[in-house]
Amino acid sequence: MEIEQITIVGQGNVGTHLYKALISVSYDVDIINSRSLYNIRNNSELYILAVSDDSIDDVASKLSSVNGIIVHTSGSKSIDVLSKYSTKCGVFYPLQTFTKNVELNYSEIPFFIEGSDLEVVCALKKVANKISKLVYDADSERRKRLHVASVFACNYVNHMWTIADEILKNDGLSINVLYPLIEETINKIHKITPYESQTGPAVRQDMSVIESHLNFLSDNDDTYNIYKTLSNSIINKHK
Amino acid sequence: MEIEQITIVGQGNVGTHLYKALISVSYDVDIINSRSLYNIRNNSELYILAVSDDSIDDVASKLSSVNGIIVHTSGSKSIDVLSKYSTKCGVFYPLQTFTKNVELNYSEIPFFIEGSDLEVVCALKKVANKISKLVYDADSERRKRLHVASVFACNYVNHMWTIADEILKNDGLSINVLYPLIEETINKIHKITPYESQTGPAVRQDMSVIESHLNFLSDNDDTYNIYKTLSNSIINKHK
Repeated sequence: MEIEQITIVGQGNVGTHLYKALISVSYDVDIINSRSLYNIRNNSELYILAVSDDSIDDVASKLSSVNGIIVHTSGSKSIDVLSKYSTKCGVFYPLQTFTKNVELNYSEIPFFIEGSDLEVVCALKKVANKISKLVYDADSERRKRLHVASVFACNYVNHMWTIADEILKNDGLSINVLYPLIEETINKIHKITPYESQTGPAVRQDMSVIESHLNFLSDNDDTYNIYKTLSNSIINKHK
Repeated sequence: MEIEQITIVGQGNVGTHLYKALISVSYDVDIINSRSLYNIRNNSELYILAVSDDSIDDVASKLSSVNGIIVHTSGSKSIDVLSKYSTKCGVFYPLQTFTKNVELNYSEIPFFIEGSDLEVVCALKKVANKISKLVYDADSERRKRLHVASVFACNYVNHMWTIADEILKNDGLSINVLYPLIEETINKIHKITPYESQTGPAVRQDMSVIESHLNFLSDNDDTYNIYKTLSNSIINKHK
């Protein structure tokens, strides 16, 4: 099965970046909004549904006129949401944080592939390999694990930086002053495990520092709770 | 006041790295354990107490025989803990995550300086400037703010990676598979603010994904609570 023409449904962060990645390796790609399905090209060999998890079922149900492989890009949804509509289906999950106007090096995006049969898996891997050097198998269980892990490693990490930025802005500073610290935090986990890298008042069980920080944060419930929950978790994990 | 000889008290992560940094720029430095104070060189122009917050007072009280400037390196302690023992005192706070056997580029460490008078401030800045190109003033209030921010930006970020690593290890994977995601997460905050960079199920208020992740984590109380606390905080901040 040779894939030459690809249709992407969904023009959000994931769809937009997949479009750029796929045209950069010379596929014939069109990208449409899920509201324009009546107008969909029906001779693509691959349909990529880059829509919200809750829309996948609805969009798939409207693709009865097409013959190509249908895949979604979700970390959380099973392949089953597609198999009731299509015998050739799969998952094409790019493990990356996509923001529309931020450029990306696509060759470094890990792709996790699942398919309804071996032929589909091979066809999808061939597409992923043209974009990226990091292509893996993942069934729904592994994909969920990866998705949960990436929420911690990316989304929650970014939220920590949002909070740090806010704390510093109240003093005329910004997250910029922490860049060397942040760079070193990431450098260390390339050399030793994050468990071994842990520093700070919680892992030292320095309760007087923790108390003074909690006092400092006491006028912001969410930030106070985060500090308390995370320092307790560090203490528990390292005691 | 020209500083040529420096004594570091404390052989932990901070003391060890400051020692390496200071000898690399040709200071005459000795480093001793706080239990060896009876043996301290008394002609240093600068004494750096790189000891735990709770030991600073005790160590400073034992330095009545020395004439040099006495500083501590703590993000949380006021300069006052030293000024009762010494008229020439200050704070020499390196905002970095130090792990003993992990090499560092010292020129990229921001130093935050406070001194009992202008002469002390100038002398300390001169030392810091020899090590690093990033030297700033910070009174105790700013230093505390920086310290709290760095707990979020570094210590808690690292804990997020520890959790991600554990989740993946249960599937024979490790944090390595998330490196491209982590690198991109950090790249983005150099281009747009962390607030603007936020992605993931919480900022999309995708409650079905959040529920499914909480189910997945339900056998680990700490991790479950962290997921819940952080996704609520993201929802509140971005709604």
